[in-house]
Amino acid sequence: MSDTLDLAAGWLSTDDLLAARGTLPILYVEAIPVRVDAAGRITAVGLLLRARPDGTVSRAVVAGRVLYRERIRDALIRHLEKDLGAVALPRLPVSIAPFTVVEYFPDPSVSGFHDPRQHAVALAYVVPVDGDCVPSQSAIDLAWLTPQEATSEAVLAEFSGGQDRLIRLAMAHGGQLP
Amino acid sequence: MSDTLDLAAGWLSTDDLLAARGTLPILYVEAIPVRVDAAGRITAVGLLLRARPDGTVSRAVVAGRVLYRERIRDALIRHLEKDLGAVALPRLPVSIAPFTVVEYFPDPSVSGFHDPRQHAVALAYVVPVDGDCVPSQSAIDLAWLTPQEATSEAVLAEFSGGQDRLIRLAMAHGGQLP
Amino acid sequence: MSDTLDLAAGWLSTDDLLAARGTLPILYVEAIPVRVDAAGRITAVGLLLRARPDGTVSRAVVAGRVLYRERIRDALIRHLEKDLGAVALPRLPVSIAPFTVVEYFPDPSVSGFHDPRQHAVALAYVVPVDGDCVPSQSAIDLAWLTPQEATSEAVLAEFSGGQDRLIRLAMAHGGQLP
Amino acid sequence: MSDTLDLAAGWLSTDDLLAARGTLPILYVEAIPVRVDAAGRITAVGLLLRARPDGTVSRAVVAGRVLYRERIRDALIRHLEKDLGAVALPRLPVSIAPFTVVEYFPDPSVSGFHDPRQHAVALAYVVPVDGDCVPSQSAIDLAWLTPQEATSEAVLAEFSGGQDRLIRLAMAHGGQLP
Repeated sequence: MSDTLDLAAGWLSTDDLLAARGTLPILYVEAIPVRVDAAGRITAVGLLLRARPDGTVSRAVVAGRVLYRERIRDALIRHLEKDLGAVALPRLPVSIAPFTVVEYFPDPSVSGFHDPRQHAVALAYVVPVDGDCVPSQSAIDLAWLTPQEATSEAVLAEFSGGQDRLIRLAMAHGGQLP
Repeated sequence: MSDTLDLAAGWLSTDDLLAARGTLPILYVEAIPVRVDAAGRITAVGLLLRARPDGTVSRAVVAGRVLYRERIRDALIRHLEKDLGAVALPRLPVSIAPFTVVEYFPDPSVSGFHDPRQHAVALAYVVPVDGDCVPSQSAIDLAWLTPQEATSEAVLAEFSGGQDRLIRLAMAHGGQLP
Repeated sequence: MSDTLDLAAGWLSTDDLLAARGTLPILYVEAIPVRVDAAGRITAVGLLLRARPDGTVSRAVVAGRVLYRERIRDALIRHLEKDLGAVALPRLPVSIAPFTVVEYFPDPSVSGFHDPRQHAVALAYVVPVDGDCVPSQSAIDLAWLTPQEATSEAVLAEFSGGQDRLIRLAMAHGGQLP
Repeated sequence: MSDTLDLAAGWLSTDDLLAARGTLPILYVEAIPVRVDAAGRITAVGLLLRARPDGTVSRAVVAGRVLYRERIRDALIRHLEKDLGAVALPRLPVSIAPFTVVEYFPDPSVSGFHDPRQHAVALAYVVPVDGDCVPSQSAIDLAWLTPQEATSEAVLAEFSGGQDRLIRLAMAHGGQLP
């Protein structure tokens, strides 16, 4: 998960964020961008390639913090634009209820979802995007894979922090778990 | 609920359908068409005005039978096109799980949802539509109301069969119950 | 899916049911019985072992038709009692919306879910059961497996009609997809 | 929403919590306790009566913060025990996905949900409870009302912060919106 642009927005200094991260769960939104056909079936999943703090590269979904006084829908739109560009045309679901809630802990054994920096709780959504997507500066690449490809052993091995499981939960939500 | 076009499709004769209606629950899909803003919030609800068999007129949502060997998503698209025209551009949800299931009985006291002709079980969806909507021959009119208007006492009184409750459940699903 | 007891109830003769099966989608409910811990996490999945019409044996979930004028909750309770006994103490969810809808077709290539006898549409629920479960006459055995065991390759291979996928969707719904 | 016991737990000093409240959204869980019949239908809703900081009294649901390194299910159990006693026997849902997400803002005009102290984001669940419930020291009373009573104008007027709307959304989720 990347906070680069959040910090640039200046609502919380780096020091304050580090302090909060040691004392409170931090609220995130996560979006799995998908292409759908005319009947709403998922035909492709958009996966980002990101450099991680330790120098390795991993697959990732769209993700970021919810800011103070920011609505969840606005946070989702902001992070989708940040990661996919301004003309991705995301289609947020009618209901704000996430399809799942992902709990990331500094200790990888608690939930299987792991974030060494913090306890983060992410509201997760599957979001169809209609427009052109261009990965932003914080991502190296964006690849569109079929649900079968995205849930293959080889691709799942390229995620970190347990997000391979998130991808499979998202495909199950869309009825596309092979 | 209207089956005019279903019958025209000829997959079941009128006699056979009448027989089945006395012995089995009949599977329907129902769609509440909505307009949404860029962040996915419902801004308007599309309500049809239909003539009923008894000569009265009532508000209604998009609805119809699922045919033999027809997929649910295809039934939804077919009925949306039948009631709203071919360029409504409906956006079916990623998940096939309906937001609620509506059980219509010949006896109005069983569930509060009433269909004098049959026991019908409807999978209900809230469906954003992007395109131009023109009510088909089976509908007298299509009106776009705000969630506040659609759930006002005056408008709710214009539904029949308990569908006023369906509208309120749909708005609750979208977080738009005033 | 077994209709033995449904037919015994006599609401539809075998001939009429066979006729309806060739002309209409037939409405089913399916329940995946689970044991949960004090915090609601799935600890075990109850899988039936059933003899199939072709003489083979396969794993199965609780399933059966919704009868004419029967409510969905009542059909669920009836089939849970039929398959697990009268003291299983099932806990139906607060919302009647199923976690998924399973579409079985005579042609296995349509949806991946297959029923050679009919087009069946099943509303699927994950149902915690608290009491003692004894498999009924229509089942050979009932086994309680952990989510890991239930989604292992070996166990998934023992299902038929695509229900291995239903088990994985149910575990995903409960956040227990390994 | 009450944090008395949270603070007693000492994971965050009052000063630190006040500081965090001015800079980050704070994660909460909320539970609407219900009694259900054997088929899972809501028969009664448990509403707390709480003294508010300004000296007035208002109806309330079970609510509280998620602590650092605490799982959501554990936070729900902790707050249900805190508000309803140790033998309430809550039955958390199989899926961790909340039925809705409630966004409380210091400014009441943003979402209609209002908390003068903070920006709080609450994951909301409807939770059947089987055991005896005794309101804790932080609540004045606990009353069990039918869904009809709980959604009557008179009772809804006794909530604050917009929680009357939460009650109606919860009843809609359970199909019990009159």
